[in-house]
Amino acid sequence: MRIRTQPTTSIATSDERRILVRGQDLVQDLIGQVSFTEMFLLQLTGKRPPKAHVRILDAVLTTLMEHGITPSVIASRLIYHSAPDALQASVAAGLLGVGSTFIGTMEGCAADLEEVLSAPEGMGERAYAIVQRYRNSGKPVHGFGHPLHKPDDPRAACLLAIAENEGVEGRHIAALRVLATQVDEIYGHHITINATGASAALLGEINIPQKIMRGVAVVSRSAGLVGHIWEESQNPSAAFIWQTVDEAIPFKAQD
Amino acid sequence: MRIRTQPTTSIATSDERRILVRGQDLVQDLIGQVSFTEMFLLQLTGKRPPKAHVRILDAVLTTLMEHGITPSVIASRLIYHSAPDALQASVAAGLLGVGSTFIGTMEGCAADLEEVLSAPEGMGERAYAIVQRYRNSGKPVHGFGHPLHKPDDPRAACLLAIAENEGVEGRHIAALRVLATQVDEIYGHHITINATGASAALLGEINIPQKIMRGVAVVSRSAGLVGHIWEESQNPSAAFIWQTVDEAIPFKAQD
Amino acid sequence: MRIRTQPTTSIATSDERRILVRGQDLVQDLIGQVSFTEMFLLQLTGKRPPKAHVRILDAVLTTLMEHGITPSVIASRLIYHSAPDALQASVAAGLLGVGSTFIGTMEGCAADLEEVLSAPEGMGERAYAIVQRYRNSGKPVHGFGHPLHKPDDPRAACLLAIAENEGVEGRHIAALRVLATQVDEIYGHHITINATGASAALLGEINIPQKIMRGVAVVSRSAGLVGHIWEESQNPSAAFIWQTVDEAIPFKAQD
Amino acid sequence: MRIRTQPTTSIATSDERRILVRGQDLVQDLIGQVSFTEMFLLQLTGKRPPKAHVRILDAVLTTLMEHGITPSVIASRLIYHSAPDALQASVAAGLLGVGSTFIGTMEGCAADLEEVLSAPEGMGERAYAIVQRYRNSGKPVHGFGHPLHKPDDPRAACLLAIAENEGVEGRHIAALRVLATQVDEIYGHHITINATGASAALLGEINIPQKIMRGVAVVSRSAGLVGHIWEESQNPSAAFIWQTVDEAIPFKAQD
Repeated sequence: MRIRTQPTTSIATSDERRILVRGQDLVQDLIGQVSFTEMFLLQLTGKRPPKAHVRILDAVLTTLMEHGITPSVIASRLIYHSAPDALQASVAAGLLGVGSTFIGTMEGCAADLEEVLSAPEGMGERAYAIVQRYRNSGKPVHGFGHPLHKPDDPRAACLLAIAENEGVEGRHIAALRVLATQVDEIYGHHITINATGASAALLGEINIPQKIMRGVAVVSRSAGLVGHIWEESQNPSAAFIWQTVDEAIPFKAQD
Repeated sequence: MRIRTQPTTSIATSDERRILVRGQDLVQDLIGQVSFTEMFLLQLTGKRPPKAHVRILDAVLTTLMEHGITPSVIASRLIYHSAPDALQASVAAGLLGVGSTFIGTMEGCAADLEEVLSAPEGMGERAYAIVQRYRNSGKPVHGFGHPLHKPDDPRAACLLAIAENEGVEGRHIAALRVLATQVDEIYGHHITINATGASAALLGEINIPQKIMRGVAVVSRSAGLVGHIWEESQNPSAAFIWQTVDEAIPFKAQD
Repeated sequence: MRIRTQPTTSIATSDERRILVRGQDLVQDLIGQVSFTEMFLLQLTGKRPPKAHVRILDAVLTTLMEHGITPSVIASRLIYHSAPDALQASVAAGLLGVGSTFIGTMEGCAADLEEVLSAPEGMGERAYAIVQRYRNSGKPVHGFGHPLHKPDDPRAACLLAIAENEGVEGRHIAALRVLATQVDEIYGHHITINATGASAALLGEINIPQKIMRGVAVVSRSAGLVGHIWEESQNPSAAFIWQTVDEAIPFKAQD
Repeated sequence: MRIRTQPTTSIATSDERRILVRGQDLVQDLIGQVSFTEMFLLQLTGKRPPKAHVRILDAVLTTLMEHGITPSVIASRLIYHSAPDALQASVAAGLLGVGSTFIGTMEGCAADLEEVLSAPEGMGERAYAIVQRYRNSGKPVHGFGHPLHKPDDPRAACLLAIAENEGVEGRHIAALRVLATQVDEIYGHHITINATGASAALLGEINIPQKIMRGVAVVSRSAGLVGHIWEESQNPSAAFIWQTVDEAIPFKAQD
């Protein structure tokens, strides 16, 4: 079974004189001239992004970076304790938790937005159908609701306001608002757009494909985890976590 | 064996009204107002960083993000092919390669700079001793030399110029220059400061501890890997890589 | 949001005198008296397994351990080169490749077998419907076909013969044979049951739930990868793989 | 920089007719005829192992598989909760904890045994020097001592008895006993050989190199983790762990 298609890469190349990333000279055009976020967008999309897109992505990356003592953070801290000489493994362990349970809501919302946007019958009608589907399934609507922040998730409002200010408010945010109207109507009370819902819409506006959105969360969380690993190295919690969990889960002889 | 020290965290806390990260209100003070890099420095150091520090870290993160088809990239692309539904695992697999072989040079250089800076006998004398140690061991000096870029690694010069422009040029860069003088003298020819050497010095200037520097590389590479995974999803190479490697490594019956 | 259900564990407990795993005294009953595979079945199922089950699992673990230079092996070797001091990370990187692309065929076949077995209308009718579904989708039937081994995958025949010899041949293998009949009929030519198909049926016979089957593959591959890492440490290939892949994937400027 | 050495692999090869692993025909010679552990030794060493070696490795793998609610187990359970569709990632996260903190004691003991065995001045004298070194450093002797099991770790006694029964008791176990004598003498009271110390000696007796011993622990733990993941899927603890840890680590505003 011979692979016939010759793959190529368009990301980077270099010779004695220079390193090109996405057609830009790393030294002449990029280092010292672009922020991390601008570089990340260039790396991902192949184009120097408009400033507004950089600010949108900065806002989303800022939103997703830190959420306190999450499962990812606990995993990273425990693995750092077990292998302090392999810091990369402790970040990796935490990132393995950026999976369907948490980031699925952002991806699911982005998929719903794309479905709304591509519906031949009009956005409202499709949004109605989508929310009814959730309602019937008994599962929460992706990108909506928050256990703590009521009536509204302040991060979502903030993100949407930034999009408006930056002038990137377009089809995805419009679709999100159409969904929100149906959510309130069908559930019979107001349910907030949450941070993952707003993030999905904003990333859609700056042309981040739904399929790679989890990667944005991974990058943001990697920075958050490095902060926790540093705190762990200064103020260790792993042995305490281990003991606390071990004592909290009693042994029960099986039947 | 009871753990008596109660660990605490100073990174984040939240209540109904607000989310605080490092004492800042996430919605009022951070989202839309700080870049990813500023947020990362806040997360790591606990303080709003001076703008110059943000620009230094942006420069280092930009430098480290992309290096073409590296071992980490190959691993990420292969794992993406094997588990396309678990994008986080493909980033994690690549990040596991941000280990001692490659990032060790940045960490080793940072350790050398700290040794030079804390030497009671003076920087020059200690730098001489350090470089002699490398010379005797036959191993390359951490942070010096490049197979391709001769006489000088243009990224290093660029990074050092940025530090000067931003006014953060201080003790670590001074120590690096003292080391560089000894390197040229002891080896009898000019050996360039390379990108990892300059990065080590710049991170030192903005107070990133040597022990956590690998984390900076991990964050930067996570963004680079997401770019490769997106390209892989559009222009797959993994099956070709597999076949190419399989054919390139012949079977040899053992003795 | 308070979790009200108190979780418990029934796997292990210990006191000053003894360590109990699944109700067995580790020292009195297990070490030196059970094989790894028997211990694994005890750990997983909570019961001392019949000898026939141990032999079936040994046969499946033996089958899945080694497949030459696979994507997982390449990833493990590259990560070992990048972080030789963190062997666990190199195994973990390879295991991240035990995902839906490869192990999905075993899991998919196991799901098909369960569907056949629980069909009220009878096995034949449901098997017909399942194979028609594959046919219409244009995708290969999970657990059937092999690019190299024709007409039959010798591993599958061997595994099925072992099940027969051990007297565990039951419902799952019967369902697999019913599926096989429909496959040959509907595709109009013989398509072999392959190693993953036979493994799925055998694991079903010894009561390994479909949901955890990937874990069996993970355990087997971990041993395979340790073998490759040891060979890599003695006869390094990673730098050669890197160079080979880098040269094989040309840079192509983007449009 | 061209790699001139052509790497080869001696592990596996296949053609239309057969699959060879380490010179054995997978179908004719291995599946159904060897246990997992025998296959693992073949994979690792390239030779069909003597039965005694298989039993020794079975005993060590049985000893290391399960230790209750460890950091690795907690990490695996949390990652399973975060990404239940990527079971391989949850095992990998736990395995990342098989690092220097825990397995370092087995590796360190194995290194001490090798040092004792290769000392030109005789085993006793070198053992004395090694134990004095530990004593002076204030660190525990690798492979000795246990917080719970006093005066003796019953697993260690069991493992050493198995080696004796199997007739593989040789130089490494002799060296361990010489170390043990010095430990009791120099510390002035009896300190038990523990399970990792005995495991190091037994693995040495069956020719597992010190450098790859961590891989043996990784394989054993992978099976242990799969058991915990299965229990987690049936009796979920991750949300409870998350909440328990979050509540147990109070926020403390930084100075």
